[in-house]
Amino acid sequence: MFDPASLKYDVNGLIPAIAQDAESHDVLMMAWMNAEAVAQTLQTGRVTYWSRSRKSFWVKGESSGHVQELVELRVDCDRDCLLVLVRQTGPACHTNRRSCFYTAIREGAETEIMKPMI
Amino acid sequence: MFDPASLKYDVNGLIPAIAQDAESHDVLMMAWMNAEAVAQTLQTGRVTYWSRSRKSFWVKGESSGHVQELVELRVDCDRDCLLVLVRQTGPACHTNRRSCFYTAIREGAETEIMKPMI
Repeated sequence: MFDPASLKYDVNGLIPAIAQDAESHDVLMMAWMNAEAVAQTLQTGRVTYWSRSRKSFWVKGESSGHVQELVELRVDCDRDCLLVLVRQTGPACHTNRRSCFYTAIREGAETEIMKPMI
Repeated sequence: MFDPASLKYDVNGLIPAIAQDAESHDVLMMAWMNAEAVAQTLQTGRVTYWSRSRKSFWVKGESSGHVQELVELRVDCDRDCLLVLVRQTGPACHTNRRSCFYTAIREGAETEIMKPMI
């Protein structure tokens, strides 16, 4: 059985989790989990992070409705990073863009490549 | 002009960088950059990380030949994470798998979903 305690967490007890759209394969966001958030994500099927600013669990979309349904959790070779395949409802970004990675560096300048969905 | 110093680095001066295959959209790996690694990546077109274990720059593939050619660098909304679209030669993972995320949690157990390429 997979044990969340077997992962490698940083000095704050956190591990980076990359959320990727299971259908489009777009990378949506990166946030952090602790062992309990990993366990809750697997148990509930609702992707749950640890909010470093609020110092509390963050069930993604709990207030906005922009939930992430877990499709599959993957662990990297060093066991210190997670890839979370999700079914994303609406925007993943708090700016209402589908992905947080909407700024590209093109010819040395920042370029917005994605508009808010709503 | 984009200035790498405008990004948000952690207490160690590092920012996580997610490497994604520009063609297949597979997430290949996650590693860390400092401001100088970001600048070098943009200048040279060769993706360059900061190795936390070796405490030195790590031009990906310099010894293995499994280089990452930069296609596009993207910054997230909080400016504290990078998405690096790359053209990957061979495996990205030191285990010779295409991606470091070759372990999936399925029905509560770890399952290897990718074999070494070479």
